[in-house]
Amino acid sequence: MDIDIDMLKRNKNQRLLNILPKISERLNITESDLKNAINRKIIAHDTYKNQKYILFKKKYRHIERGTILFLNENLDYIMGYPKIRRAMVLDPTLKNYFIDKIAIEEKLDGYNVRIAKINNTEIVAITRGGRICPFTTKKALKFIDTKILNDYPDIMLCGEMIGLNNPYVPYYYPEVDNNINYEGDTSDNSNDIENLGFYIFDIRNKETNKSLTISQKGELLKKYNLPHIQPIDIVNKEEISKIKEIILKLDHEKREGIILKDPDMVINPIKYTTHHTQCSDLSIAFTYMYDLGINFMFSRLVREGYQSIEFNENKEEMEQRAKEIGESILYPMINTIKKVSKNETIREDFEIFMDNEEDLNEFLVYLKKLHIAYVILEKEQINNSIIKIKIGRLYNSTNDKIKSHLNGNLWSD
Amino acid sequence: MDIDIDMLKRNKNQRLLNILPKISERLNITESDLKNAINRKIIAHDTYKNQKYILFKKKYRHIERGTILFLNENLDYIMGYPKIRRAMVLDPTLKNYFIDKIAIEEKLDGYNVRIAKINNTEIVAITRGGRICPFTTKKALKFIDTKILNDYPDIMLCGEMIGLNNPYVPYYYPEVDNNINYEGDTSDNSNDIENLGFYIFDIRNKETNKSLTISQKGELLKKYNLPHIQPIDIVNKEEISKIKEIILKLDHEKREGIILKDPDMVINPIKYTTHHTQCSDLSIAFTYMYDLGINFMFSRLVREGYQSIEFNENKEEMEQRAKEIGESILYPMINTIKKVSKNETIREDFEIFMDNEEDLNEFLVYLKKLHIAYVILEKEQINNSIIKIKIGRLYNSTNDKIKSHLNGNLWSD
Repeated sequence: MDIDIDMLKRNKNQRLLNILPKISERLNITESDLKNAINRKIIAHDTYKNQKYILFKKKYRHIERGTILFLNENLDYIMGYPKIRRAMVLDPTLKNYFIDKIAIEEKLDGYNVRIAKINNTEIVAITRGGRICPFTTKKALKFIDTKILNDYPDIMLCGEMIGLNNPYVPYYYPEVDNNINYEGDTSDNSNDIENLGFYIFDIRNKETNKSLTISQKGELLKKYNLPHIQPIDIVNKEEISKIKEIILKLDHEKREGIILKDPDMVINPIKYTTHHTQCSDLSIAFTYMYDLGINFMFSRLVREGYQSIEFNENKEEMEQRAKEIGESILYPMINTIKKVSKNETIREDFEIFMDNEEDLNEFLVYLKKLHIAYVILEKEQINNSIIKIKIGRLYNSTNDKIKSHLNGNLWSD
Repeated sequence: MDIDIDMLKRNKNQRLLNILPKISERLNITESDLKNAINRKIIAHDTYKNQKYILFKKKYRHIERGTILFLNENLDYIMGYPKIRRAMVLDPTLKNYFIDKIAIEEKLDGYNVRIAKINNTEIVAITRGGRICPFTTKKALKFIDTKILNDYPDIMLCGEMIGLNNPYVPYYYPEVDNNINYEGDTSDNSNDIENLGFYIFDIRNKETNKSLTISQKGELLKKYNLPHIQPIDIVNKEEISKIKEIILKLDHEKREGIILKDPDMVINPIKYTTHHTQCSDLSIAFTYMYDLGINFMFSRLVREGYQSIEFNENKEEMEQRAKEIGESILYPMINTIKKVSKNETIREDFEIFMDNEEDLNEFLVYLKKLHIAYVILEKEQINNSIIKIKIGRLYNSTNDKIKSHLNGNLWSD
């Protein structure tokens, strides 16, 4: 059967145009703006369990990137998580930016998720980009008691999914080693450890993005016994040396960085990351050297310049930083090129645990929909209710370009 | 007086449209292609000593970037210098690409210039981008006996202007220290040394770009006693180890790299650069960190990966390379940020020697026309016929962005 994709898209957009007045009212944006967003392909269509929704692929007027709106009776929508800007230097940025106090929370290196209720019944987990991820939704429902969303249906729980066993940012965190429990088995098998966890950092109104204060959030999360990011400290905005000490400690522990918040959440949080994170990002960037954007690399490099000056480094410290930058660039690149020269394929492997084949298939369909190229490397039925799968995400530009260079093709630069 | 710039441009384009059939015939390109190039702003207008010319800002069909065509009777034109592609690895690239022999010439780190005759009378020096640079034209005429262009008016002399005392790529070469001669002064004043030279590397037909063979070129340049790049060696294409030795020697001597040519010049030359050049480029890139493009940085970094593998480096050599990459990135960036923090302005200073105020003014008008921001730092009348001027090229994005970050402005990344 031939399917005319363009026609399908036109039909979808036509259906959307019919309810445009309603959407316009709901999102408080003009119909002509919405039409423009459709024409410029900022609005995309998607489906989750037969429920149609639209999503904003970029920020557009006051609508955040990743905002999703369900084409249901009520036109339920969940606003995207706002962009968190970065302080390139702590001093004087924090003194200028904050009002008086600063609440410091740890920034975890995972992926941003919003959990909210739709249709008054169903709980979904939405990625930063505005997709309902079936993997994340299932895991979030295991980690989180969602009673809070029955009591407060207007909120969204914003948090970070972290740990080795996720398909997006597989980075090990010692605190999220979970035993995968199943009946009748008492063996101590390392296969049965899932390194995955979810930590809430904001409670926001899902439509307005208005946030609870740090203390309101703390109380509510404690009351409902929900996992959340612990505040590290609350300091006066002049106490930058205290913040620097925290950065150095986190860097030493190979942690990502901090989020700085106004205790009343009346201004947007800002972020600052460790040298460790910059180098670790560079390593990833140069492992998949032709797939990750060069802006990604450049931004990590310039942060290092500002950080060295801000921390008033001496000659030895600068040398050490330079060495680590150079090694984070060169070694992964050499590894990758060598692998390709040996006909190995450059991929990022991750292992995830799924309950059953149906869930696994649903997730694989999801990956395909997002045009993520992958191969399934291993699949192991651990017991009746747990499958472990190892998936390799393929970095095709890196594979193809390196192969081409090694085969002697010329380069225009 | 109000000048309507847009109207002037329209008038220029209108005049151009009138002679389009002739240009089309001359360049062997259709009128509709030419119109398209005008509309897409690939063709720009310029003037040199009241002679109008057009130039191609990008490669378009078979017309190379930097091609210029004079709007004179004969529609004289000089084809742009073709892009020289890069071997990311020498082995197997050279074996695949070349026919049998490879002529190896040194690649000098200056700027590409084409010298040719127009109107059957005048000699001009054209930059890569297709501008007649008054500074370069005057210097070229001093360095080069242009008798060859009387005997062969159809050729262009393609070469590299190198040395500290030029406004584009001020890089010191010991072999181009010239005494600036003037009468009656016998003092040994280091002010009187101009580090500047011009070396021819190709003789090509100025319209077809067809090149003389390596031996024809050598003979002709010798006959006319013209400064030219000496061939390093001619090797069989399988002798890659010899080429690698040359690279290592040039790297050790802090020289840029090599150009590899077919002795008959029937295929395009290709280039390969040293580790020293990669690091030196990175240093420049991170000194003017927000002005030079990030593609520039990225391309230097990936070359290092391939080179380390090609030269089969051991652990210590990789460590050394990584260290030098890291230091080439971090130290210039730290210097630049520190300078801005002390309210110093980030600029690239160069000193050039001019014959008189008139020439100097002509050159400054030229810089303005190219939208190059500069300040004059020093001006010294060395004698009746020589002025030394120190000019600082301003890197405004770098200055402004760093200032903004240091003042506490936030960054979206």
